Amino acid sequence: MCQLLGMNCNVPTDVQFSFTGFAQRGGRTDHHADGWGIAFFEDRGLRHFVDHLPACESPVAELIRRYPIKSRNVIAHIRKATQGAVNLQNCHPFVRELWGRYWVFAHNGDLKDFRPRLHGNFHPVGGTDSEHAFCWLMQELAKSHADVPSVDELTLTLRELAPRIARHGTFNFMLSNGQALWAHASTNLWSIERQHPFTLAQLADEDLSMDFAQHTTPDDRVAVVVTAPLTTNETWVPFAPGELRVFENGRSKG
Amino acid sequence: MCQLLGMNCNVPTDVQFSFTGFAQRGGRTDHHADGWGIAFFEDRGLRHFVDHLPACESPVAELIRRYPIKSRNVIAHIRKATQGAVNLQNCHPFVRELWGRYWVFAHNGDLKDFRPRLHGNFHPVGGTDSEHAFCWLMQELAKSHADVPSVDELTLTLRELAPRIARHGTFNFMLSNGQALWAHASTNLWSIERQHPFTLAQLADEDLSMDFAQHTTPDDRVAVVVTAPLTTNETWVPFAPGELRVFENGRSKG
Repeated sequence: MCQLLGMNCNVPTDVQFSFTGFAQRGGRTDHHADGWGIAFFEDRGLRHFVDHLPACESPVAELIRRYPIKSRNVIAHIRKATQGAVNLQNCHPFVRELWGRYWVFAHNGDLKDFRPRLHGNFHPVGGTDSEHAFCWLMQELAKSHADVPSVDELTLTLRELAPRIARHGTFNFMLSNGQALWAHASTNLWSIERQHPFTLAQLADEDLSMDFAQHTTPDDRVAVVVTAPLTTNETWVPFAPGELRVFENGRSKG
Repeated sequence: MCQLLGMNCNVPTDVQFSFTGFAQRGGRTDHHADGWGIAFFEDRGLRHFVDHLPACESPVAELIRRYPIKSRNVIAHIRKATQGAVNLQNCHPFVRELWGRYWVFAHNGDLKDFRPRLHGNFHPVGGTDSEHAFCWLMQELAKSHADVPSVDELTLTLRELAPRIARHGTFNFMLSNGQALWAHASTNLWSIERQHPFTLAQLADEDLSMDFAQHTTPDDRVAVVVTAPLTTNETWVPFAPGELRVFENGRSKG
Protein backbone atom coordinates (compact mmCIF):
# COMPACT_ATOMS: atom_id res chain seq x y z
CA MET A 1 0.00 0.00 0.00
CA CYS A 2 1.13 3.56 -0.65
CA GLN A 3 2.33 5.93 2.03
CA LEU A 4 0.99 9.43 2.64
CA LEU A 5 2.54 12.34 4.52
CA GLY A 6 0.93 15.73 5.11
CA MET A 7 2.06 18.76 7.09
CA ASN A 8 0.14 21.91 8.02
CA CYS A 9 1.71 24.75 10.05
CA ASN A 10 1.03 28.27 11.24
CA VAL A 11 4.43 29.50 10.02
CA PRO A 12 6.50 28.21 7.06
CA THR A 13 8.32 25.13 8.36
CA ASP A 14 10.70 22.74 6.68
CA VAL A 15 9.67 19.11 6.39
CA GLN A 16 13.19 17.66 6.19
CA PHE A 17 13.03 15.66 9.42
CA SER A 18 9.70 13.99 8.63
CA PHE A 19 10.58 13.56 4.95
CA THR A 20 13.87 11.86 5.83
CA GLY A 21 12.06 9.11 7.70
CA PHE A 22 9.22 8.96 5.20
CA ALA A 23 11.55 8.66 2.17
CA GLN A 24 13.17 5.57 3.72
CA ARG A 25 9.86 3.78 3.20
CA GLY A 26 10.28 4.29 -0.54
CA GLY A 27 12.22 1.10 -1.18
CA ARG A 28 14.42 0.75 1.91
CA THR A 29 12.45 0.10 5.11
CA ASP A 30 9.21 -0.68 3.29
CA HIS A 31 8.06 -1.83 -0.15
CA HIS A 32 6.91 1.34 -1.89
CA ALA A 33 9.32 1.63 -4.77
CA ASP A 34 7.10 2.67 -7.67
CA GLY A 35 7.77 6.41 -7.57
CA TRP A 36 6.99 9.22 -5.21
CA GLY A 37 6.08 12.89 -5.14
CA ILE A 38 5.81 15.93 -2.90
CA ALA A 39 4.14 19.32 -3.20
CA PHE A 40 4.94 22.42 -1.12
CA PHE A 41 2.75 25.49 -1.08
CA GLU A 42 4.48 28.84 -0.75
CA ASP A 43 1.69 31.36 -0.35
CA ARG A 44 -0.47 30.61 -3.41
CA GLY A 45 2.49 29.22 -5.37
CA LEU A 46 3.46 25.57 -5.51
CA ARG A 47 6.60 23.50 -5.82
CA HIS A 48 5.69 20.07 -7.15
CA PHE A 49 8.23 17.26 -7.46
CA VAL A 50 7.47 13.80 -8.82
CA ASP A 51 9.85 11.01 -9.71
CA HIS A 52 9.37 7.45 -10.88
CA LEU A 53 12.59 6.38 -9.13
CA PRO A 54 12.26 4.98 -5.58
CA ALA A 55 12.33 7.82 -3.05
CA CYS A 56 15.33 6.31 -1.26
CA GLU A 57 17.40 6.50 -4.51
CA SER A 58 15.95 9.55 -6.27
CA PRO A 59 18.29 12.54 -6.78
CA VAL A 60 15.23 14.78 -6.48
CA ALA A 61 14.40 13.29 -3.07
CA GLU A 62 18.02 13.83 -2.08
CA LEU A 63 17.66 17.52 -3.04
CA ILE A 64 14.61 17.85 -0.80
CA ARG A 65 16.37 16.18 2.12
CA ARG A 66 19.18 18.76 1.81
CA TYR A 67 17.43 21.95 0.65
CA PRO A 68 15.19 23.31 3.44
CA ILE A 69 12.06 24.31 1.55
CA LYS A 70 9.76 26.01 4.06
CA SER A 71 6.04 25.67 3.63
CA ARG A 72 2.78 25.88 5.58
CA ASN A 73 1.15 23.05 3.61
CA VAL A 74 2.93 19.96 2.29
CA ILE A 75 1.62 16.69 0.83
CA ALA A 76 3.92 13.78 -0.02
CA HIS A 77 3.25 10.31 -1.37
CA ILE A 78 5.26 7.16 -1.98
CA ARG A 79 3.70 4.83 -4.47
CA LYS A 80 3.19 1.09 -4.49
CA ALA A 81 1.49 0.56 -7.85
CA THR A 82 -1.79 -1.34 -7.61
CA GLN A 83 -3.56 0.25 -10.60
CA GLY A 84 -1.83 2.06 -13.45
CA ALA A 85 1.71 1.68 -14.81
CA VAL A 86 4.89 2.94 -13.13
CA ASN A 87 5.42 6.23 -14.93
CA LEU A 88 5.53 9.92 -14.21
CA GLN A 89 1.89 10.72 -15.02
CA ASN A 90 0.77 8.19 -12.40
CA CYS A 91 2.87 9.63 -9.55
CA HIS A 92 0.99 11.42 -6.79
CA PRO A 93 0.37 14.11 -5.67
CA PHE A 94 -1.78 15.40 -8.52
CA VAL A 95 -2.38 19.12 -9.10
CA ARG A 96 -5.25 21.07 -10.63
CA GLU A 97 -6.30 24.73 -10.62
CA LEU A 98 -9.79 25.82 -9.53
CA TRP A 99 -11.01 29.35 -8.69
CA GLY A 100 -7.48 30.71 -9.15
CA ARG A 101 -5.96 28.35 -6.59
CA TYR A 102 -3.88 25.19 -6.95
CA TRP A 103 -5.30 22.03 -5.41
CA VAL A 104 -3.05 19.12 -4.47
CA PHE A 105 -4.30 15.58 -3.87
CA ALA A 106 -2.71 12.25 -2.92
CA HIS A 107 -4.44 8.94 -2.24
CA ASN A 108 -3.63 5.66 -0.56
CA GLY A 109 -5.80 2.64 -1.22
CA ASP A 110 -7.70 0.84 -3.96
CA LEU A 111 -11.02 1.94 -5.40
CA LYS A 112 -13.06 -0.71 -7.16
CA ASP A 113 -15.53 0.20 -9.90
CA PHE A 114 -15.27 3.92 -9.23
CA ARG A 115 -15.07 5.37 -12.71
CA PRO A 116 -17.90 7.94 -12.81
CA ARG A 117 -18.28 9.79 -16.06
CA LEU A 118 -16.40 13.09 -15.84
CA HIS A 119 -18.64 15.71 -17.45
CA GLY A 120 -16.79 18.72 -16.01
CA ASN A 121 -13.46 20.41 -16.59
CA PHE A 122 -11.15 17.95 -14.89
CA HIS A 123 -9.81 14.87 -16.65
CA PRO A 124 -7.09 12.44 -15.64
CA VAL A 125 -3.78 12.56 -17.51
CA GLY A 126 -2.60 9.17 -16.23
CA GLY A 127 -4.36 5.86 -15.67
CA THR A 128 -4.89 5.60 -11.90
CA ASP A 129 -8.15 5.29 -10.01
CA SER A 130 -6.72 7.93 -7.68
CA GLU A 131 -6.46 10.68 -10.29
CA HIS A 132 -9.94 9.77 -11.55
CA ALA A 133 -11.30 10.20 -8.01
CA PHE A 134 -9.48 13.53 -7.66
CA CYS A 135 -10.96 14.82 -10.93
CA TRP A 136 -14.43 13.79 -9.75
CA LEU A 137 -13.87 15.57 -6.40
CA MET A 138 -12.76 18.75 -8.20
CA GLN A 139 -15.74 18.56 -10.55
CA GLU A 140 -18.14 18.23 -7.62
CA LEU A 141 -16.44 21.03 -5.64
CA ALA A 142 -16.73 23.28 -8.72
CA LYS A 143 -20.45 22.46 -8.94
CA SER A 144 -21.03 23.07 -5.23
CA HIS A 145 -19.49 26.55 -4.95
CA ALA A 146 -19.32 29.53 -7.31
CA ASP A 147 -16.00 30.80 -5.96
CA VAL A 148 -13.40 29.65 -3.46
CA PRO A 149 -15.39 28.97 -0.27
CA SER A 150 -14.22 29.19 3.31
CA VAL A 151 -12.30 26.33 4.86
CA ASP A 152 -15.36 25.41 6.92
CA GLU A 153 -17.65 25.37 3.89
CA LEU A 154 -15.17 23.20 2.00
CA THR A 155 -15.02 20.81 4.93
CA LEU A 156 -18.81 20.42 4.87
CA THR A 157 -18.77 19.69 1.13
CA LEU A 158 -15.92 17.20 1.49
CA ARG A 159 -17.76 15.41 4.30
CA GLU A 160 -20.58 14.83 1.81
CA LEU A 161 -18.36 13.82 -1.11
CA ALA A 162 -15.76 11.60 0.55
CA PRO A 163 -18.17 8.81 1.61
CA ARG A 164 -19.50 8.58 -1.97
CA ILE A 165 -16.00 7.56 -3.09
CA ALA A 166 -15.03 5.65 0.07
CA ARG A 167 -17.83 3.11 -0.36
CA HIS A 168 -15.95 1.84 -3.44
CA GLY A 169 -12.86 0.77 -1.49
CA THR A 170 -10.06 2.24 0.55
CA PHE A 171 -9.93 6.00 0.38
CA ASN A 172 -7.22 7.46 2.58
CA PHE A 173 -6.50 10.82 1.00
CA MET A 174 -4.99 14.25 1.60
CA LEU A 175 -6.05 17.47 -0.11
CA SER A 176 -4.77 21.03 0.23
CA ASN A 177 -5.34 24.36 -1.50
CA GLY A 178 -2.58 26.11 0.45
CA GLN A 179 -5.00 27.35 3.13
CA ALA A 180 -5.71 24.11 4.95
CA LEU A 181 -4.99 20.38 4.85
CA TRP A 182 -7.86 17.91 4.64
CA ALA A 183 -7.17 14.28 5.51
CA HIS A 184 -9.66 11.41 5.23
CA ALA A 185 -9.08 7.88 6.47
CA SER A 186 -10.68 4.60 5.48
CA THR A 187 -8.04 2.53 7.20
CA ASN A 188 -4.63 3.88 8.25
CA LEU A 189 -3.94 7.53 9.09
CA TRP A 190 -2.41 9.04 12.19
CA SER A 191 -1.86 12.66 13.14
CA ILE A 192 0.09 14.64 15.68
CA GLU A 193 0.05 18.31 16.62
CA ARG A 194 3.35 19.66 17.86
CA GLN A 195 3.44 22.85 19.90
CA HIS A 196 5.27 24.47 22.78
CA PRO A 197 6.92 22.94 24.79
CA PHE A 198 8.61 21.11 21.89
CA THR A 199 10.54 17.95 22.67
CA LEU A 200 13.05 15.56 21.19
CA ALA A 201 11.60 13.24 18.52
CA GLN A 202 13.12 9.92 17.43
CA LEU A 203 12.51 8.74 13.84
CA ALA A 204 11.11 5.22 13.52
CA ASP A 205 12.70 4.54 10.10
CA GLU A 206 16.20 5.92 10.58
CA ASP A 207 18.55 6.37 13.50
CA LEU A 208 17.94 10.10 13.70
CA SER A 209 16.44 12.36 16.31
CA MET A 210 15.63 16.05 16.38
CA ASP A 211 15.17 18.42 19.28
CA PHE A 212 12.35 20.58 17.95
CA ALA A 213 12.85 23.01 20.85
CA GLN A 214 16.05 24.19 19.14
CA HIS A 215 14.32 24.90 15.81
CA THR A 216 11.05 26.49 16.87
CA THR A 217 9.56 29.46 18.68
CA PRO A 218 6.90 29.11 21.40
CA ASP A 219 4.21 30.25 18.95
CA ASP A 220 4.90 27.59 16.29
CA ARG A 221 2.27 24.95 15.65
CA VAL A 222 2.83 22.02 13.32
CA ALA A 223 0.38 19.24 12.45
CA VAL A 224 1.67 16.10 10.72
CA VAL A 225 -0.55 13.39 9.22
CA VAL A 226 0.89 10.10 8.04
CA THR A 227 -0.02 6.51 7.11
CA ALA A 228 2.01 5.12 10.01
CA PRO A 229 3.61 7.04 12.88
CA LEU A 230 7.02 8.48 11.95
CA THR A 231 8.44 8.74 15.45
CA THR A 232 8.70 6.26 18.28
CA ASN A 233 8.44 8.55 21.29
CA GLU A 234 5.44 10.77 20.53
CA THR A 235 1.72 10.10 20.86
CA TRP A 236 0.12 9.81 17.42
CA VAL A 237 -3.68 9.88 17.24
CA PRO A 238 -5.29 7.31 14.92
CA PHE A 239 -8.16 8.29 12.59
CA ALA A 240 -11.43 6.42 12.93
CA PRO A 241 -12.70 4.72 9.72
CA GLY A 242 -14.50 7.37 7.65
CA GLU A 243 -13.08 10.28 9.64
CA LEU A 244 -12.21 13.54 7.87
CA ARG A 245 -9.93 15.96 9.74
CA VAL A 246 -9.07 19.47 8.62
CA PHE A 247 -5.96 21.28 9.81
CA GLU A 248 -5.47 25.04 9.58
CA ASN A 249 -2.60 26.99 11.14
CA GLY A 250 -1.16 23.77 12.55
CA ARG A 251 -4.29 22.91 14.48
CA SER A 252 -7.14 20.45 13.90
CA LYS A 253 -10.48 22.16 13.39
CA GLY A 254 -12.25 19.05 14.66
CA MET B 1 13.29 41.19 -20.44
CA CYS B 2 12.77 37.56 -19.61
CA GLN B 3 14.51 34.70 -21.35
CA LEU B 4 12.81 31.70 -22.94
CA LEU B 5 14.22 28.30 -23.86
CA GLY B 6 12.34 25.48 -25.60
CA MET B 7 13.44 22.09 -26.84
CA ASN B 8 11.58 19.56 -28.99
CA CYS B 9 13.12 16.22 -30.01
CA ASN B 10 12.22 12.96 -31.70
CA VAL B 11 13.80 10.91 -28.88
CA PRO B 12 14.13 11.81 -25.18
CA THR B 13 17.15 14.08 -24.93
CA ASP B 14 18.74 15.83 -21.99
CA VAL B 15 18.81 19.61 -22.00
CA GLN B 16 21.84 20.00 -19.70
CA PHE B 17 24.14 21.67 -22.26
CA SER B 18 21.60 24.29 -23.35
CA PHE B 19 20.32 24.79 -19.80
CA THR B 20 23.84 25.38 -18.49
CA GLY B 21 24.33 28.34 -20.81
CA PHE B 22 20.76 29.53 -20.35
CA ALA B 23 20.91 29.41 -16.52
CA GLN B 24 23.94 31.75 -16.57
CA ARG B 25 21.60 34.45 -17.85
CA GLY B 26 19.67 34.19 -14.59
CA GLY B 27 21.75 36.73 -12.69
CA ARG B 28 25.31 36.14 -13.92
CA THR B 29 25.80 37.04 -17.61
CA ASP B 30 22.51 38.91 -17.86
CA HIS B 31 20.00 40.63 -15.58
CA HIS B 32 17.20 38.12 -15.11
CA ALA B 33 17.32 37.40 -11.42
CA ASP B 34 13.65 37.31 -10.41
CA GLY B 35 13.16 33.56 -10.47
CA TRP B 36 13.06 30.88 -13.11
CA GLY B 37 11.33 27.64 -14.01
CA ILE B 38 11.52 24.62 -16.27
CA ALA B 39 9.07 21.89 -17.29
CA PHE B 40 9.96 18.52 -18.82
CA PHE B 41 7.40 16.23 -20.38
CA GLU B 42 7.95 12.50 -19.97
CA ASP B 43 5.30 10.89 -22.12
CA ARG B 44 2.10 12.51 -20.77
CA GLY B 45 3.69 13.16 -17.36
CA LEU B 46 5.42 16.36 -16.36
CA ARG B 47 8.27 17.43 -14.15
CA HIS B 48 7.80 21.09 -13.24
CA PHE B 49 10.40 23.06 -11.29
CA VAL B 50 10.05 26.71 -10.29
CA ASP B 51 12.20 28.76 -7.96
CA HIS B 52 12.19 32.41 -6.92
CA LEU B 53 15.99 32.32 -6.45
CA PRO B 54 18.16 33.42 -9.41
CA ALA B 55 18.81 30.46 -11.72
CA CYS B 56 22.59 30.85 -11.35
CA GLU B 57 22.28 30.38 -7.52
CA SER B 58 19.27 28.07 -7.20
CA PRO B 59 19.92 24.60 -5.73
CA VAL B 60 17.09 23.33 -7.92
CA ALA B 61 18.82 24.66 -11.06
CA GLU B 62 22.00 23.00 -9.86
CA LEU B 63 20.13 19.70 -9.61
CA ILE B 64 18.94 20.04 -13.22
CA ARG B 65 22.44 20.84 -14.45
CA ARG B 66 23.68 17.60 -12.83
CA TYR B 67 20.76 15.19 -13.19
CA PRO B 68 20.19 14.29 -16.85
CA ILE B 69 16.42 14.44 -17.16
CA LYS B 70 15.57 13.24 -20.67
CA SER B 71 12.56 14.68 -22.40
CA ARG B 72 11.08 15.24 -25.85
CA ASN B 73 9.53 18.59 -24.90
CA VAL B 74 11.06 21.14 -22.53
CA ILE B 75 10.17 24.76 -21.77
CA ALA B 76 12.31 26.95 -19.49
CA HIS B 77 12.03 30.57 -18.44
CA ILE B 78 14.16 33.06 -16.53
CA ARG B 79 12.21 35.96 -15.16
CA LYS B 80 12.87 39.68 -15.07
CA ALA B 81 9.83 40.98 -13.22
CA THR B 82 7.97 43.70 -15.10
CA GLN B 83 4.47 42.98 -13.79
CA GLY B 84 3.66 41.02 -10.63
CA ALA B 85 5.74 40.50 -7.50
CA VAL B 86 8.77 38.21 -7.21
CA ASN B 87 7.22 35.10 -5.73
CA LEU B 88 6.63 31.48 -6.61
CA GLN B 89 3.13 31.84 -8.07
CA ASN B 90 4.49 34.33 -10.62
CA CYS B 91 7.30 32.10 -11.90
CA HIS B 92 6.89 30.67 -15.40
CA PRO B 93 6.27 28.20 -16.90
CA PHE B 94 2.61 27.85 -15.90
CA VAL B 95 0.74 24.54 -16.11
CA ARG B 96 -2.90 23.64 -16.65
CA GLU B 97 -4.77 20.48 -17.61
CA LEU B 98 -7.15 20.34 -20.57
CA TRP B 99 -8.65 17.25 -22.28
CA GLY B 100 -6.57 14.98 -20.01
CA ARG B 101 -3.26 16.55 -21.05
CA TYR B 102 -0.96 18.98 -19.30
CA TRP B 103 -0.26 22.28 -21.08
CA VAL B 104 2.85 24.31 -20.29
CA PHE B 105 3.26 28.00 -21.16
CA ALA B 106 5.99 30.61 -20.74
CA HIS B 107 6.01 34.20 -21.95
CA ASN B 108 8.53 36.93 -22.57
CA GLY B 109 7.35 40.50 -22.99
CA ASP B 110 4.87 43.01 -21.65
CA LEU B 111 1.16 43.06 -22.44
CA LYS B 112 -0.63 46.32 -21.87
CA ASP B 113 -4.35 46.43 -21.14
CA PHE B 114 -4.85 42.75 -21.88
CA ARG B 115 -7.10 41.64 -19.05
CA PRO B 116 -10.08 40.04 -20.80
CA ARG B 117 -12.74 38.66 -18.52
CA LEU B 118 -12.12 34.97 -17.95
CA HIS B 119 -15.53 33.25 -18.13
CA GLY B 120 -14.17 29.73 -18.56
CA ASN B 121 -12.42 27.21 -16.37
CA PHE B 122 -8.94 28.71 -16.22
CA HIS B 123 -8.02 31.42 -13.73
CA PRO B 124 -4.64 32.85 -12.78
CA VAL B 125 -3.18 31.96 -9.39
CA GLY B 126 -0.57 34.74 -9.47
CA GLY B 127 -0.65 38.35 -10.63
CA THR B 128 1.15 38.40 -13.99
CA ASP B 129 -0.22 39.47 -17.36
CA SER B 130 1.46 36.31 -18.71
CA GLU B 131 -0.62 33.87 -16.67
CA HIS B 132 -3.76 35.85 -17.52
CA ALA B 133 -2.93 35.51 -21.24
CA PHE B 134 -2.29 31.77 -20.79
CA CYS B 135 -5.65 31.29 -19.05
CA TRP B 136 -7.37 33.15 -21.90
CA LEU B 137 -5.56 30.99 -24.49
CA MET B 138 -6.65 27.82 -22.69
CA GLN B 139 -10.22 29.07 -22.42
CA GLU B 140 -10.33 29.80 -26.15
CA LEU B 141 -8.71 26.45 -27.05
CA ALA B 142 -11.32 24.70 -24.91
CA LYS B 143 -14.09 26.56 -26.76
CA SER B 144 -12.60 25.80 -30.20
CA HIS B 145 -12.27 22.03 -29.86
CA ALA B 146 -14.34 19.36 -28.12
CA ASP B 147 -11.39 17.07 -27.47
CA VAL B 148 -7.63 17.18 -27.93
CA PRO B 149 -7.17 18.09 -31.62
CA SER B 150 -4.29 17.19 -33.91
CA VAL B 151 -1.10 19.23 -33.83
CA ASP B 152 -2.04 20.81 -37.17
CA GLU B 153 -5.52 21.78 -35.98
CA LEU B 154 -4.04 23.30 -32.82
CA THR B 155 -1.57 25.28 -34.91
CA LEU B 156 -4.41 26.74 -36.97
CA THR B 157 -6.29 27.77 -33.82
CA LEU B 158 -3.16 29.29 -32.26
CA ARG B 159 -2.48 31.27 -35.46
CA GLU B 160 -5.90 32.87 -34.95
CA LEU B 161 -5.54 33.46 -31.23
CA ALA B 162 -1.93 34.69 -30.89
CA PRO B 163 -2.39 37.95 -32.86
CA ARG B 164 -5.39 38.87 -30.68
CA ILE B 165 -3.02 38.94 -27.69
CA ALA B 166 0.07 40.18 -29.54
CA ARG B 167 -1.59 43.44 -30.55
CA HIS B 168 -1.52 44.40 -26.84
CA GLY B 169 2.28 44.34 -26.58
CA THR B 170 5.19 41.94 -26.81
CA PHE B 171 4.09 38.34 -26.95
CA ASN B 172 7.01 35.96 -27.35
CA PHE B 173 5.69 32.69 -25.95
CA MET B 174 6.19 28.94 -25.91
CA LEU B 175 3.48 26.33 -25.41
CA SER B 176 3.64 22.55 -25.28
CA ASN B 177 1.25 19.70 -24.51
CA GLY B 178 3.97 17.04 -24.71
CA GLN B 179 3.26 16.30 -28.38
CA ALA B 180 4.68 19.44 -29.99
CA LEU B 181 6.27 22.79 -29.14
CA TRP B 182 4.65 25.98 -30.37
CA ALA B 183 6.72 29.17 -30.35
CA HIS B 184 5.47 32.63 -31.27
CA ALA B 185 7.64 35.75 -31.62
CA SER B 186 6.79 39.41 -31.42
CA THR B 187 10.43 40.46 -31.16
CA ASN B 188 13.25 38.08 -30.21
CA LEU B 189 13.20 34.35 -30.85
CA TRP B 190 15.69 32.15 -32.66
CA SER B 191 15.62 28.46 -33.45
CA ILE B 192 17.99 25.79 -34.61
CA GLU B 193 17.42 22.21 -35.73
CA ARG B 194 20.27 19.87 -35.02
CA GLN B 195 20.56 16.61 -36.93
CA HIS B 196 23.13 14.24 -38.40
CA PRO B 197 26.00 15.05 -38.97
CA PHE B 198 26.19 16.54 -35.48
CA THR B 199 29.05 18.94 -34.72
CA LEU B 200 30.81 20.62 -31.85
CA ALA B 201 28.89 23.51 -30.30
CA GLN B 202 30.41 26.33 -28.24
CA LEU B 203 28.25 27.97 -25.52
CA ALA B 204 28.02 31.76 -25.74
CA ASP B 205 27.49 32.27 -21.99
CA GLU B 206 30.05 29.90 -20.50
CA ASP B 207 33.39 28.49 -21.58
CA LEU B 208 31.94 25.11 -22.45
CA SER B 209 31.63 23.14 -25.65
CA MET B 210 29.95 19.86 -26.50
CA ASP B 211 30.56 17.45 -29.35
CA PHE B 212 26.99 16.36 -30.05
CA ALA B 213 28.32 13.64 -32.38
CA GLN B 214 29.46 11.73 -29.29
CA HIS B 215 26.05 11.87 -27.60
CA THR B 216 23.68 11.20 -30.47
CA THR B 217 22.69 8.64 -33.06
CA PRO B 218 22.28 9.49 -36.78
CA ASP B 219 18.48 9.42 -36.41
CA ASP B 220 18.28 12.00 -33.60
CA ARG B 221 16.66 15.33 -34.31
CA VAL B 222 16.62 18.19 -31.81
CA ALA B 223 15.05 21.62 -32.24
CA VAL B 224 15.98 24.39 -29.80
CA VAL B 225 14.19 27.75 -29.58
CA VAL B 226 15.59 30.58 -27.49
CA THR B 227 15.41 34.35 -26.89
CA ALA B 228 19.02 34.84 -27.99
CA PRO B 229 21.33 32.26 -29.62
CA LEU B 230 23.00 29.99 -27.06
CA THR B 231 26.01 29.00 -29.14
CA THR B 232 28.55 31.04 -31.09
CA ASN B 233 29.39 28.64 -33.91
CA GLU B 234 25.99 27.47 -35.18
CA THR B 235 23.49 29.14 -37.50
CA TRP B 236 20.39 30.21 -35.58
CA VAL B 237 17.34 31.25 -37.58
CA PRO B 238 15.52 34.38 -36.35
CA PHE B 239 11.72 34.50 -36.17
CA ALA B 240 9.91 37.20 -38.10
CA PRO B 241 7.62 39.47 -36.05
CA GLY B 242 4.28 37.69 -35.62
CA GLU B 243 5.65 34.30 -36.70
CA LEU B 244 4.39 31.11 -35.06
CA ARG B 245 6.50 27.98 -35.53
CA VAL B 246 5.51 24.49 -34.45
CA PHE B 247 8.05 21.75 -33.84
CA GLU B 248 7.23 18.07 -33.73
CA ASN B 249 9.75 15.22 -33.56
CA GLY B 250 12.59 17.75 -33.59
CA ARG B 251 11.50 19.27 -36.87
CA SER B 252 9.71 22.49 -37.77
CA LYS B 253 6.32 21.89 -39.38
CA GLY B 254 6.58 25.26 -41.16
